[in-house]
Amino acid sequence: MLAEIITIGDEILIGQIVDTNSAWMAKQLNLIGVSVKQITSVSDDEQHILSALADAETRADIILITGGLGPTKDDITKKTLAKYFNMGFRNDAGALEMVRQIFEKFKRPLLDINIQQADVPDGCEVIVNKNGTAPCMWFEEHDKIFVSMPGVPYEMMYLMDDEVLPRIKSRFKLPSIVHKTILTANIGESFLAKEIEEIEDSLPPHIKLAYLPKLGQVRLRLSAKGDNELTLKAEVEVYAQQIITKVKKFVVIDEDLPLEQAILNLMKSKGLTLSTAESCTGGYIAHLITQHPGCSSVYWGGAVAYAYELKESILGVKEVTLSKFGAVSEETVTEMAEGAIKHFKTDYAIAVSGIAGPDGGTEDKPVGTVWIAISSTNKTVAKVFNFSNKRLQNIERSAASALMMLLNLLREDFYNE
Amino acid sequence: MLAEIITIGDEILIGQIVDTNSAWMAKQLNLIGVSVKQITSVSDDEQHILSALADAETRADIILITGGLGPTKDDITKKTLAKYFNMGFRNDAGALEMVRQIFEKFKRPLLDINIQQADVPDGCEVIVNKNGTAPCMWFEEHDKIFVSMPGVPYEMMYLMDDEVLPRIKSRFKLPSIVHKTILTANIGESFLAKEIEEIEDSLPPHIKLAYLPKLGQVRLRLSAKGDNELTLKAEVEVYAQQIITKVKKFVVIDEDLPLEQAILNLMKSKGLTLSTAESCTGGYIAHLITQHPGCSSVYWGGAVAYAYELKESILGVKEVTLSKFGAVSEETVTEMAEGAIKHFKTDYAIAVSGIAGPDGGTEDKPVGTVWIAISSTNKTVAKVFNFSNKRLQNIERSAASALMMLLNLLREDFYNE
Repeated sequence: MLAEIITIGDEILIGQIVDTNSAWMAKQLNLIGVSVKQITSVSDDEQHILSALADAETRADIILITGGLGPTKDDITKKTLAKYFNMGFRNDAGALEMVRQIFEKFKRPLLDINIQQADVPDGCEVIVNKNGTAPCMWFEEHDKIFVSMPGVPYEMMYLMDDEVLPRIKSRFKLPSIVHKTILTANIGESFLAKEIEEIEDSLPPHIKLAYLPKLGQVRLRLSAKGDNELTLKAEVEVYAQQIITKVKKFVVIDEDLPLEQAILNLMKSKGLTLSTAESCTGGYIAHLITQHPGCSSVYWGGAVAYAYELKESILGVKEVTLSKFGAVSEETVTEMAEGAIKHFKTDYAIAVSGIAGPDGGTEDKPVGTVWIAISSTNKTVAKVFNFSNKRLQNIERSAASALMMLLNLLREDFYNE
Repeated sequence: MLAEIITIGDEILIGQIVDTNSAWMAKQLNLIGVSVKQITSVSDDEQHILSALADAETRADIILITGGLGPTKDDITKKTLAKYFNMGFRNDAGALEMVRQIFEKFKRPLLDINIQQADVPDGCEVIVNKNGTAPCMWFEEHDKIFVSMPGVPYEMMYLMDDEVLPRIKSRFKLPSIVHKTILTANIGESFLAKEIEEIEDSLPPHIKLAYLPKLGQVRLRLSAKGDNELTLKAEVEVYAQQIITKVKKFVVIDEDLPLEQAILNLMKSKGLTLSTAESCTGGYIAHLITQHPGCSSVYWGGAVAYAYELKESILGVKEVTLSKFGAVSEETVTEMAEGAIKHFKTDYAIAVSGIAGPDGGTEDKPVGTVWIAISSTNKTVAKVFNFSNKRLQNIERSAASALMMLLNLLREDFYNE
């Protein structure tokens, strides 16, 4: 079963927004055994939308369309779909009722353009959108399924979760797809490939291996497709174990988890607590950690100590350390990490201080210079990195490196017991 | 001049990574007057890549391809391009030298598969990639330009900035595209559309208006295309001023800036300082602020006070307040904000405490209940919100609402002078 995703809207093509919807949709579709053949972003242009629809239906069985359903003139998805399927319009009672309820809830008068939100091509089935005024539309035409959804991410997500995915599941007999991800670190992609070459060459045709490198980590993903999920799982597991055995010391975790989640799981299992003391990462490490439900049993919080004053008052960094060595130094970052352990009373602490840029670099300490320290109650490890001259990259790489250093220290403390 | 972007790689189609490259590339292309007609994501499959290339060249003059250039077996872009253009291979001396240098720098032995990174289709021009081992390849075939770049974002960005965009600019006479964005808040999309209906109807065909709603804000974007940039700018400015005059009280800023950047600019111009005291947003507000270069003249830092202990020790929240009213209460969030003002010595402070979920909700305070307080040195405003049951959404909406509350308070304090 093949699907395609079409996103409609100039805002993606001029780069004003990043298309996060498609990745989320693709992930959910894969989980139920629907492969996504192509993702296409087109502009709010009738001819272009028509040809994208025509192309997609030559390749896929299910075409999921997002965007272009707002009440304003630049939104033309509905009328283009009506034209594509040669349909007229009806005002849908269920959709109109939902629009009325939403406007009542927010105590706003109903305008004509809001009532028109309930106009739909007359051959579609309306799926009521409980979180917005644009209805979801389900078409069964040309022996294919077309679903049009709003582009607002949380409206689309609810519609997919509660309506569209269950309908697809009940409608088709879907093949099983099994993915298994192994997160590795401290080894480059090509070295990893060399190490596991023989295992890769021995894979049967229905199992594929992919390498996904990012910020010093490489994710290995085995993907198997077939009829029987249990058999596939067992098959994939055999190859996964061969890989894990071969490159054991580089394996972080054999699940598709971000690094910080793997660390949280490990620390939780040991009953350990963590705090952060961030300067140049500015709360990004805290944010990475606190994205994850249940993090509060491990993570107590920390400081975003941007100004000297806060490094001193919250973390107890000495004034003389800052004036003598500067904020970006082994001495300061060590005091930040040890200050976090002392003041926040956690078992481990991460501290980062660097020059994220684009300004603030010197000859000695150019933009991209970042000191990271990890402390436990009885030791501190500090290390300097030289990243790039791009601010966001420096923040992301600092965070990834800090998490890797924490993981390495945890392993030293617990795996070598 | 039309371009298309093709991203190659299963990882996007199974939703394992979000395609952030395309938005960045589209933005840069638009800035130099190249419109992006379509963005297409296809899998690591030869036939599919071949047909995507053939389709793209029917619509666009420049085809930019990212991904599939790694050293491993799942990366087939190079050999597919050679097949598409009917070319053989050569090992490129410049590309090989760069691979050698990178391996020397990291003191790693050069493997055969690394040397093969310098193999390229023999009809292409190699653009050396200073940040990675996969060369950039520039093809001029079928009267079109095709550029293949690695999918690693920072490698692609450097290549685009330093090589590909300058080459496109010097090669073509490009039309001018002018965008003007007006950020509005506190008004829904349809009400806004109703307010400015007459202005929208009076726009000439070469100027388009788009509505981009997100988290309680709506961005209005005017886009004009033509020959003379100065004329276009003047024209767009006339319509922009009409809109701004019509909906003045909802306009946050008339630039394409994120809300937090608009706030930073305003505070900087007034010489004001800011700190944060975050519980459920877990550093996300600090991260939004510290993404921006130069934020340190306004933002001093703050606390991520996840645990009760840290709310007390860093922010001075009273134990009795926490035990009597709970962490998610007007009383606690007020003490957090006022504690930040007192301990961090800034002019303004943001405090957020809520139940991000999915766990931790009660009947009185369900998941999505968020208290936000904004303090200045002489007053505190606190407000409760009821968001959704999705953790990441709650974090994002809390941050957006907190920033809007801060902006409203700043306006009260400074615009009504």
